[in-house]
Amino acid sequence: MDEFALIQRFFASAQADNPSVVCGIGDDAAVLAPTAGTQLVACTDTLVAGRHFLPDANPYDVGWKSLAVNLSDLAAMGATQRWFLLALTLPEADEAWLAGFADGLAACAQRYGIALVGGDTTRGPLTITITALGEVRRGQAMRRDAAKAGDLIALTGPVGEGAAGLAVLQDPALAEQLHDASAQVLIQCYARPKPRLAHGQLLAGLAHAAIDVSDGLLQDLGHVLGASSVGAAIDLAAIPTSKALRTVPDIEQRQQWQLAGGDDYELLVTLPRNALDEAQSRLAHANLPPLRVFGEIRAEPGLVEAQTGTTFSA
Amino acid sequence: MDEFALIQRFFASAQADNPSVVCGIGDDAAVLAPTAGTQLVACTDTLVAGRHFLPDANPYDVGWKSLAVNLSDLAAMGATQRWFLLALTLPEADEAWLAGFADGLAACAQRYGIALVGGDTTRGPLTITITALGEVRRGQAMRRDAAKAGDLIALTGPVGEGAAGLAVLQDPALAEQLHDASAQVLIQCYARPKPRLAHGQLLAGLAHAAIDVSDGLLQDLGHVLGASSVGAAIDLAAIPTSKALRTVPDIEQRQQWQLAGGDDYELLVTLPRNALDEAQSRLAHANLPPLRVFGEIRAEPGLVEAQTGTTFSA
Repeated sequence: MDEFALIQRFFASAQADNPSVVCGIGDDAAVLAPTAGTQLVACTDTLVAGRHFLPDANPYDVGWKSLAVNLSDLAAMGATQRWFLLALTLPEADEAWLAGFADGLAACAQRYGIALVGGDTTRGPLTITITALGEVRRGQAMRRDAAKAGDLIALTGPVGEGAAGLAVLQDPALAEQLHDASAQVLIQCYARPKPRLAHGQLLAGLAHAAIDVSDGLLQDLGHVLGASSVGAAIDLAAIPTSKALRTVPDIEQRQQWQLAGGDDYELLVTLPRNALDEAQSRLAHANLPPLRVFGEIRAEPGLVEAQTGTTFSA
Repeated sequence: MDEFALIQRFFASAQADNPSVVCGIGDDAAVLAPTAGTQLVACTDTLVAGRHFLPDANPYDVGWKSLAVNLSDLAAMGATQRWFLLALTLPEADEAWLAGFADGLAACAQRYGIALVGGDTTRGPLTITITALGEVRRGQAMRRDAAKAGDLIALTGPVGEGAAGLAVLQDPALAEQLHDASAQVLIQCYARPKPRLAHGQLLAGLAHAAIDVSDGLLQDLGHVLGASSVGAAIDLAAIPTSKALRTVPDIEQRQQWQLAGGDDYELLVTLPRNALDEAQSRLAHANLPPLRVFGEIRAEPGLVEAQTGTTFSA
């Protein structure tokens, strides 16, 4: 299969007409014009069929999600999304699948304004690797190792919905227990996650550390604590929970999804107490939901449960 | 498998201690400091087991080659190699294979001075995707669409060795026809290609168009002619042939490998006639072999065979 013809045909709409793309798809490599005063931010994520998405998953959703999970990594650094490359390994040239995949990918690229600038198409077991490139103002990237004792710990939104959505897809009995609307909301959270790019960009320079909660809240918080050599106290009752998730009757299961489910793409950030007002004000001005504080960083290593109702930001 | 632990353990030696890496492996994304006055060059290439390398291939060679083919794409743009990301899909944590692969990858990274800055490790059918990032002085990238009528067409070195090396590996009868030394040279050309980064960097700003001949000489020349809307005349007898390849007795087979074999990583460049002396002088000063002129770009589309012995650069 001629990779250029294939990519050109299906991915034309993801190639934004963008002056920063000096030379895009079709050469040995892309040539890109960086923005003065910025640092480059780069990440790569692979989705393997049968492991990262269900074998019968809607190809549109697979296309959306394969880019969205990478954008979420850029968001966690506070970066502005710019360009991406797609390495697509396909068992055969299944045009219907490819067209759906390309539509979902292009929709996500257009929604978040990022340009497809290169790629490679190979024959083999279905595997999608995307490398996303972004930019951040020099020195303002939010790193995992930058949390400081006394920081507040906050989320950009509710967690647990991704894991709940996957469960709804896999368990018809669970789906029947829920209102259709709630089930649909949860499935959408799983299938078409929304990277918190705007949150990340507004918080860069204010927040110390950030991470996306794609591995599960406790595990990702653990990554921050470990990298920063600090501990934390959190109030489990203060972890934000969506209306849709609250319709799931089994409270224990719900909490399990919230703490360990993964496949959520909210950001967990730590920020100095005195930066919270400015952060909330920036988010409010951008019509974005406020940060939800649910804990604080402490000097002593380890994670402890704070008394329910603790007001960390007081 | 914990991807960070795995990557940290096996790939530590490919992570150069490099001031341009502000934040490397272990965060959501890498943060990199670009060089002022440059443009970013980015490419991605996937190697699938059983398709791009033999199932029983030496893992060291697979590691070397998976990076080298990407470096060759940077070379073809005239870029300076800077950083790379590795997306590795593995059927199981085979430590012996992984150690060999990591050694070959690290050897290539160290030989060419490029830093591993991020990656993703997933479980699934063996697939390796590398994204390489480089930099080129603003406006000096060598593009496929930049060949001009009157340009000379040249190669940085002999072609046909990659395909010959693969044939030697696959056909014991052929191997027996050759001296051991020749067979080994050809196998090395196939298994551990040498990207022509230094050539590319010295020719950027002098040459108009460039491409690496990884798909085969005629096909890659065709890419340049098509993208540039020009034609060419070439002298088949002037295509450089290595001493090792000349020991293959079947002349027709040899020419087939040279014209259509692929898996060569020399650069094909087109450059104005009056830039040839300066190009050769730059290469000589860097102790690099000279360009080998074998044709010229013409305004009329199509590829024609010039009379043997035509001196294009006269």
